[in-house]
Amino acid sequence: MSDNLPDMKVGLREALVLFVIGAVVAPFGDHAHVVTGTTRYLTDTGPFIWDVPLWFAATVGVGTVLAAEMRLRLGPPRSTVTARHAVAGIAAVIGIYMLTALLNDAQIEPTTALIVALAAVTGCVLADRPAVLVGLGAAVLGPAVEALQSAGDLFEYNDNSDGLFGVAPWLPALYFAFGVTASVLAEYVTSRR
Amino acid sequence: MSDNLPDMKVGLREALVLFVIGAVVAPFGDHAHVVTGTTRYLTDTGPFIWDVPLWFAATVGVGTVLAAEMRLRLGPPRSTVTARHAVAGIAAVIGIYMLTALLNDAQIEPTTALIVALAAVTGCVLADRPAVLVGLGAAVLGPAVEALQSAGDLFEYNDNSDGLFGVAPWLPALYFAFGVTASVLAEYVTSRR
Amino acid sequence: MSDNLPDMKVGLREALVLFVIGAVVAPFGDHAHVVTGTTRYLTDTGPFIWDVPLWFAATVGVGTVLAAEMRLRLGPPRSTVTARHAVAGIAAVIGIYMLTALLNDAQIEPTTALIVALAAVTGCVLADRPAVLVGLGAAVLGPAVEALQSAGDLFEYNDNSDGLFGVAPWLPALYFAFGVTASVLAEYVTSRR
Repeated sequence: MSDNLPDMKVGLREALVLFVIGAVVAPFGDHAHVVTGTTRYLTDTGPFIWDVPLWFAATVGVGTVLAAEMRLRLGPPRSTVTARHAVAGIAAVIGIYMLTALLNDAQIEPTTALIVALAAVTGCVLADRPAVLVGLGAAVLGPAVEALQSAGDLFEYNDNSDGLFGVAPWLPALYFAFGVTASVLAEYVTSRR
Repeated sequence: MSDNLPDMKVGLREALVLFVIGAVVAPFGDHAHVVTGTTRYLTDTGPFIWDVPLWFAATVGVGTVLAAEMRLRLGPPRSTVTARHAVAGIAAVIGIYMLTALLNDAQIEPTTALIVALAAVTGCVLADRPAVLVGLGAAVLGPAVEALQSAGDLFEYNDNSDGLFGVAPWLPALYFAFGVTASVLAEYVTSRR
Repeated sequence: MSDNLPDMKVGLREALVLFVIGAVVAPFGDHAHVVTGTTRYLTDTGPFIWDVPLWFAATVGVGTVLAAEMRLRLGPPRSTVTARHAVAGIAAVIGIYMLTALLNDAQIEPTTALIVALAAVTGCVLADRPAVLVGLGAAVLGPAVEALQSAGDLFEYNDNSDGLFGVAPWLPALYFAFGVTASVLAEYVTSRR
């Protein structure tokens, strides 16, 4: 199945494509968080592209590959997933990401409920059961890693958006949408074998 | 068909499930309206959960059952409705509800048009003809009841959002989405008989 | 195929319907831009309906017909397009239009990315390949015409929203959604022959 990653279901070229998608999309979202003051980097460990550290982009790229691998381990990909679903998933994550930035100083409770609702709609439209599981896993692991990074003073969320162990209450929902989309991307890239 | 409500198409257990869904979702929306100052209660008739009076939650629960009953009287449920549609409908109502709260002091005309557009998309994705009728009924009855309650000084909408007989101009669109979703929930719960 | 427009694929009555849809929807969007200060007319060439000049409404009406004609020339319409898709497309354009108005003084980069994401979702849900091409054509031509009109002092975008040759950076995305929707309308009206 895979090119030359014998223990992985995602092939080498597929992993590269997934890594690039994650690493290219992430800086747009992170830049939006930085320019709106949703988040602030406390480290100058770079290099920086724009105002986004390269390690953040790389982390999201690796996370995309890992989420996709997890999706393929949880069940066979659907044969019905097309470029339409892949693009819609990426657009959904970007749109939700931008809303969290634009609403960073709005009331946190309705903002969080709105983001959760949008992530749920994304799941209802795009996810199958394995993708929901990947999304839920991402919703736990992503914010946990960010909470540790925040505790380690790599960055901070603003006062309005740090109510969940130092990170934003809507962050699990954003990661859920990310996990669902990475799963759909896994289905799409493997459907082209 | 029904367990022991001989004159209703919705069964007793189904009615209970629908009531609970409505009564649990409503306080989140109402709380968002209260904390953002979209609405303000002028009565202290409680008991209150959070800042939401119990009678409001109960009213929405009953409304959900009645809308579902109306849906089933208007035509046979579609066999294609799944949990995916039910969850998407609930998420759509919550998302639209939250947007009305977050935009409570934005220009009322574009806000209203945005909410109408989102309610229309919800209808296009989820509704069949009977659900559209239930949605339109809810869009008339819901705001009418709230206008009477507002006139009776139970609560008030803020100055920016009271242009429709004392209630918000976007309120019919929110109730339309509610009616469509209650209809889809009716289809979903009866499909599990 | 057509009633009496021998060189066009869109029939005369269909063209009239499309013109009216475009010319009726456009003032709502334009009015939202004007009341929020997103745009400001520098000309008093009227007559004006509300605060929207008639020539703007007429231009959008003609643009709708031309985009629909282009769609039909690029390929056969799908037989699966229904009123559901037509209404959803119109609602999507109105919703995106309203968001650009409501976010006119928000950070321009995340606002633009949000609007692009929403336009992309609209395309993924509604467009086939010819509609994407029409959307891309509209995304180039629409802003180009508006940039010329802005340079000719017919109107201006506000300082936050004039970064793309005098027009808004999100304008191509709005026109893309318009082109996709005009294409779906073309498919819908011709499916009723």
